[in-house]
Amino acid sequence: MPAPTLAAMSHPSHLPLVPPDELGHRARRLAARLRDDGLDGAFLLHPSSLFWISGTLSDAYPFVTADGSAVLALRTGVGRAAHESPLPQAPFRRLPDLPGALADLGASIEGAVGLELDVVPVATWERLRRVFPAVEFRDCSRAIREIRAVKSPWETDWIERAAEILRVPMDEVLPPRLRPGISEVELSAILEGELRARRHQGIIRLRRWNMEMYIGVLSAGASASYPCYFDGPDGLEALYPGVQQGGGERLLGPGVTIMVDFVGGAGGYLADRTRIYSIGEPPTEAREAHEFCREMLVEITSRLRPGAIPSAVYEEVTKAAEQSPFADRFMGYGENRVGFLGHGIGIDLDELPVLAPRFDLPLEPGNVIAVEPKVFLGETGGVGVENTYVVTENGCRNLTPGPEEIRVVVPRGHA
Amino acid sequence: MPAPTLAAMSHPSHLPLVPPDELGHRARRLAARLRDDGLDGAFLLHPSSLFWISGTLSDAYPFVTADGSAVLALRTGVGRAAHESPLPQAPFRRLPDLPGALADLGASIEGAVGLELDVVPVATWERLRRVFPAVEFRDCSRAIREIRAVKSPWETDWIERAAEILRVPMDEVLPPRLRPGISEVELSAILEGELRARRHQGIIRLRRWNMEMYIGVLSAGASASYPCYFDGPDGLEALYPGVQQGGGERLLGPGVTIMVDFVGGAGGYLADRTRIYSIGEPPTEAREAHEFCREMLVEITSRLRPGAIPSAVYEEVTKAAEQSPFADRFMGYGENRVGFLGHGIGIDLDELPVLAPRFDLPLEPGNVIAVEPKVFLGETGGVGVENTYVVTENGCRNLTPGPEEIRVVVPRGHA
Repeated sequence: MPAPTLAAMSHPSHLPLVPPDELGHRARRLAARLRDDGLDGAFLLHPSSLFWISGTLSDAYPFVTADGSAVLALRTGVGRAAHESPLPQAPFRRLPDLPGALADLGASIEGAVGLELDVVPVATWERLRRVFPAVEFRDCSRAIREIRAVKSPWETDWIERAAEILRVPMDEVLPPRLRPGISEVELSAILEGELRARRHQGIIRLRRWNMEMYIGVLSAGASASYPCYFDGPDGLEALYPGVQQGGGERLLGPGVTIMVDFVGGAGGYLADRTRIYSIGEPPTEAREAHEFCREMLVEITSRLRPGAIPSAVYEEVTKAAEQSPFADRFMGYGENRVGFLGHGIGIDLDELPVLAPRFDLPLEPGNVIAVEPKVFLGETGGVGVENTYVVTENGCRNLTPGPEEIRVVVPRGHA
Repeated sequence: MPAPTLAAMSHPSHLPLVPPDELGHRARRLAARLRDDGLDGAFLLHPSSLFWISGTLSDAYPFVTADGSAVLALRTGVGRAAHESPLPQAPFRRLPDLPGALADLGASIEGAVGLELDVVPVATWERLRRVFPAVEFRDCSRAIREIRAVKSPWETDWIERAAEILRVPMDEVLPPRLRPGISEVELSAILEGELRARRHQGIIRLRRWNMEMYIGVLSAGASASYPCYFDGPDGLEALYPGVQQGGGERLLGPGVTIMVDFVGGAGGYLADRTRIYSIGEPPTEAREAHEFCREMLVEITSRLRPGAIPSAVYEEVTKAAEQSPFADRFMGYGENRVGFLGHGIGIDLDELPVLAPRFDLPLEPGNVIAVEPKVFLGETGGVGVENTYVVTENGCRNLTPGPEEIRVVVPRGHA
């Protein structure tokens, strides 16, 4: 047999490549910010940032210079990266060879260089300091997160595709499968299989280093109020103490609400959507709390427009919510209550902007935010709506449309 | 309505709790190692380590003292942690309150304190240094990884349950669904739905900070040799450049092999298993290469026993493999070739020991290793076997049994 090389293999034609002008635009926007921050360049090492700047994934060190050029030194996926990324590329084996690989690409690593210190481990940072002894590494995570918070139309289109993957499974496939006695996890497994067959990407990325997320949460009744470690309003019993994610063993039945909070994923981009279901008529308090959440959704989304201050939106809407009988169950039950109303979303589930105190940067067209007013009623279940919105020139647009009422399902033979 | 507290809710009875004596044993073993390393205690902040030491997950700071006691200061999941973990617990809100919370628990944080610097981000480490200005933080990741590499019978039992979740879906559900024209991702979606319905935990954890893993890989023909970023021998076209995981758009058909490399997960623990399928008779070179892999599997596993040196096992078996016509396609195709034959597995997919150069610590009973001799044949596909083994008193035991031949499927109407 001939010695194996990628050259003998054809590149799969189905892979959707990131357009080169899209990547060029990103590098130039980031470079302008690096100059403002007094940086001479930056490494983008988090997988999400690596994909955002290069259009591919690899065990790689992409470097952006302050003049807006980007290069890629990489250890794995060499032939693949050549197909997927227009960035000039050089392979290397060991970290001490990295400076040489970057020099071959014409990039000089000197002066003050940005590194995402919110996620880069201490040991990685120390190794980089050893191979670049003259460089002063500084945190550039805020800069990267703020630049990435403004999505291009191409990115918004992928978020919309991620949302579209959720629509039919949540709105059409799921309701007829809701029947008394099926467990959360069994129903979730059906939904997950449907999503994957529709090309859901599977992995959900988070930036925060010790946080993790599965495709979604399906909870019946009290499960939605049970505390879990995830930094969101949803509670969850789940299957195991060691993996507090996904549906658990609770059986579906009448008299409680069923919360389905799933993350769509396509092409590396995410969309977040929550809908509520009920087998037979939901309890009155659930109907009332759900209508309250829908009012809060209008309160929030009517404020989403260029120039709006996220922390001010949070303050105003929280103040309005405090007048309601659901105030102390809004955005989490008991210890689960969180101090935000929505979160930026894109390649990661936890992007900027966040509708929360201290997030004071005005909204811009292209910001994408998952807004999730929810109320948690203990044994009765969770209610509310979550949609993902893009900020437009004069307001915002819902990327996750579809009916927002509690979906009442009457199983056959139970009419 | 009464103010919501967890006290009003019942704890779900299905959650399998980690036995307190199991946790006590772990803390004592770690403490002995910390004393050997001259440390006065350690924080275990990686989610896998947090679960290993506490039995729960939370936004938490578990601390183990050098005398073998462990305590848990936590910000989220308070009521849940009280149910799931026997560790003494104290809640706190902001990081400056952490020293007080730990002091309330009787833990004095002073002297040299271990931190997992291979994964803890620079910013987290800097914040901890500010709230504990007198403490000298030192890397303890090697100690934690080496202690965690020896599994208790309770842990091995969970790994076996994770393996059992894979068995019927891979050996019985999958074969009748193999038909020409179905895509990798559609077949994978069926398998994934089956696994989740059988209580697969969903999330697959890796320790390495910028690596990520989906539930598994299903690749047909050339897909298995296409480079991807994951640090393993399998190649993969996948669906998207930004998520090089899971099955892709390649259609199944005769004349190629189909590689199914899936990770089982239950109770926080993982098991890794690969089997090969073929629609109709596989090509002769695939049969021969597969038999070669099975011989290599015997070469490797016959050496797995207490006292064996992982790097020596690697050297001996690699030398034997070099005599074969498949030498240059063994353990990866082209740029995908990796320098290991197997990897430790437990709560993370990338635990110790690794069958690779420079891993010189002798094997011990309780080590669990996924062994994966594989050959990649370009257009023809990937072949080989992966099983997960536990090292016993006098050898090793396969936790992922089942037929290892290429499974030849003849679809109805194609006989």
